[in-house]
Amino acid sequence: MKTQEIVLASRPKGMPTKNNFEFRESDVPSLKDGEVHLKGLYHSVDPYMRGRMNEGKSYVPPFKVGEPIEGAVIAEVVDSKSPNFKEGDKVQARLPWKKEMVAKGEHLQKIDDSMAPASYYLSILGMTGLTAYFGLLDIGKPKPGETVVVSGAAGAVGSVVGQIAKIKDCRVLGIAGSDAKIKMLKEKFGFDEAINYKTNEDIKGAIAEACPDKVDIYFDNVGGPISDAVVANINFHARIALCGQISLYNATETPKGPRLQPMLLTRSVLMQGFIVGNYSDRFPEGIKQLAEWVKEGKLTFEETIVDGFDKLPEAFLGLFHGDNKGKMVVKA
Amino acid sequence: MKTQEIVLASRPKGMPTKNNFEFRESDVPSLKDGEVHLKGLYHSVDPYMRGRMNEGKSYVPPFKVGEPIEGAVIAEVVDSKSPNFKEGDKVQARLPWKKEMVAKGEHLQKIDDSMAPASYYLSILGMTGLTAYFGLLDIGKPKPGETVVVSGAAGAVGSVVGQIAKIKDCRVLGIAGSDAKIKMLKEKFGFDEAINYKTNEDIKGAIAEACPDKVDIYFDNVGGPISDAVVANINFHARIALCGQISLYNATETPKGPRLQPMLLTRSVLMQGFIVGNYSDRFPEGIKQLAEWVKEGKLTFEETIVDGFDKLPEAFLGLFHGDNKGKMVVKA
Repeated sequence: MKTQEIVLASRPKGMPTKNNFEFRESDVPSLKDGEVHLKGLYHSVDPYMRGRMNEGKSYVPPFKVGEPIEGAVIAEVVDSKSPNFKEGDKVQARLPWKKEMVAKGEHLQKIDDSMAPASYYLSILGMTGLTAYFGLLDIGKPKPGETVVVSGAAGAVGSVVGQIAKIKDCRVLGIAGSDAKIKMLKEKFGFDEAINYKTNEDIKGAIAEACPDKVDIYFDNVGGPISDAVVANINFHARIALCGQISLYNATETPKGPRLQPMLLTRSVLMQGFIVGNYSDRFPEGIKQLAEWVKEGKLTFEETIVDGFDKLPEAFLGLFHGDNKGKMVVKA
Repeated sequence: MKTQEIVLASRPKGMPTKNNFEFRESDVPSLKDGEVHLKGLYHSVDPYMRGRMNEGKSYVPPFKVGEPIEGAVIAEVVDSKSPNFKEGDKVQARLPWKKEMVAKGEHLQKIDDSMAPASYYLSILGMTGLTAYFGLLDIGKPKPGETVVVSGAAGAVGSVVGQIAKIKDCRVLGIAGSDAKIKMLKEKFGFDEAINYKTNEDIKGAIAEACPDKVDIYFDNVGGPISDAVVANINFHARIALCGQISLYNATETPKGPRLQPMLLTRSVLMQGFIVGNYSDRFPEGIKQLAEWVKEGKLTFEETIVDGFDKLPEAFLGLFHGDNKGKMVVKA
């Protein structure tokens, strides 16, 4: 039988476009022992995938030109030759952008969609929720009364970081790029302060005003001049969790900026780059705690669900234009 | 009675000169209860003191124009109204650049010059040895077989870092600025490799060649382009201890450089600024271990002892021209 798939047509230079993607038909092979036949339910689109469109080594290997894009997917088992899965099971895995596919059972994780809707396992109970959880708690080590700043605050990770910081009794400032997002940060997610970096002409000054005791923890999703403005307000013994640098991902030359090391040195600041995979042995702990907070109403989140497998490239590209509120997911 | 002192005559812009210092006579006040009268034996000159010549807040307050420079000093008690000190005791403290002075007993730490010569307490058993010890062990956390790179490697801190890294069974590359220093690193301090950054035109390539398994720990004393070249060769899960940024201290504008965060992020690298004072509650542990290694012959060091109190400004300025091998000390 045939299925539709989306392949990397060419590597982007700078900002990717629809032309970097191509729709194709391909065969779904017949099942071998240990394999399952899956139908995609929800596909995740995430900023880190931009890095995989480039050639060269990063923490995950690059996509190959002419082969399907790959990402986090929630899928339903339609047929199984694996003893561990049966028809109707829902699973989460890193899978190709195909409508239907065959995968080995050992690469799949069963999810419990009676506990939470299936799409939650791509966001609050998945990679983005866990990224917020471990980045803030393990690197940031928030103490009650400390000041936490989150950039990309209205994004899937940022909004969760802010809420966990509030659960930990911190004062939280979010930085985001529209008045609608600013409103959402304060009203929906309980941030104490929020700054619209697109309309504010003195971000450094605005941060100083919003953080009279300076910044103890900076959860950085964006990099670039916004991060420079935060570091200019950093406190002694602060912790900076480097989670994303979305402002730089489409740069075609090595971006330059002020050297931050003298400030990090004189103020004894820690800066730690991380990917959520570093904490994979602690995922069960994270999922359990996040699910508890969701159940208790302490943690809410925003999903932007785009309808239709054919909208995947568009949804992905939208990440770089701030089209999403919270986690961007495509329903197949 | 009168004594000679050296005051900050004016704040330097960029590289300091002799004109920023002034010699003066001042009164030595008579002793009150709890005070001791001291004669300076050895004065320490250190790169961090350049920061104190500027206006503005750092981790230590700035020197005041018209008042004596202040630094680490080994002094001898000549008279005492403190129950804890008697004539002939040797002490270590942060004291003004004066030939004789009066200080409160509680600000002084007695040293044991039967265990090691008094000047050692300004270097290997003092701030510089402890800086190397805590920066490398507490931030770097070296594991046997890992690759350690040290910049400013022939300096007071750098040469000790390299030797402790060898004690911990690491492979060590030093970066320094003269062939004499390169020779010293390999022959006296046991570094595996050493690069002269002044004569090498491709430092990044030279580091890549010297570190085929990439850099696990970078102990950074210099900052700037040398550090960029090290970070370009950094390994996954590496640790960078920011100890000094001497290449930037005399900059008159905010120095710019490539943004390092994308590399730190994708490789899960830790960067930690620190000052030795962060570890003050563990100094006794550090001094004990360093003294043991010195006694066992595992740790050697270089002192440049300049003779004469009146040579203090000159010795300090020499730090920025690479005049010193190892710790620069002035014998009063």
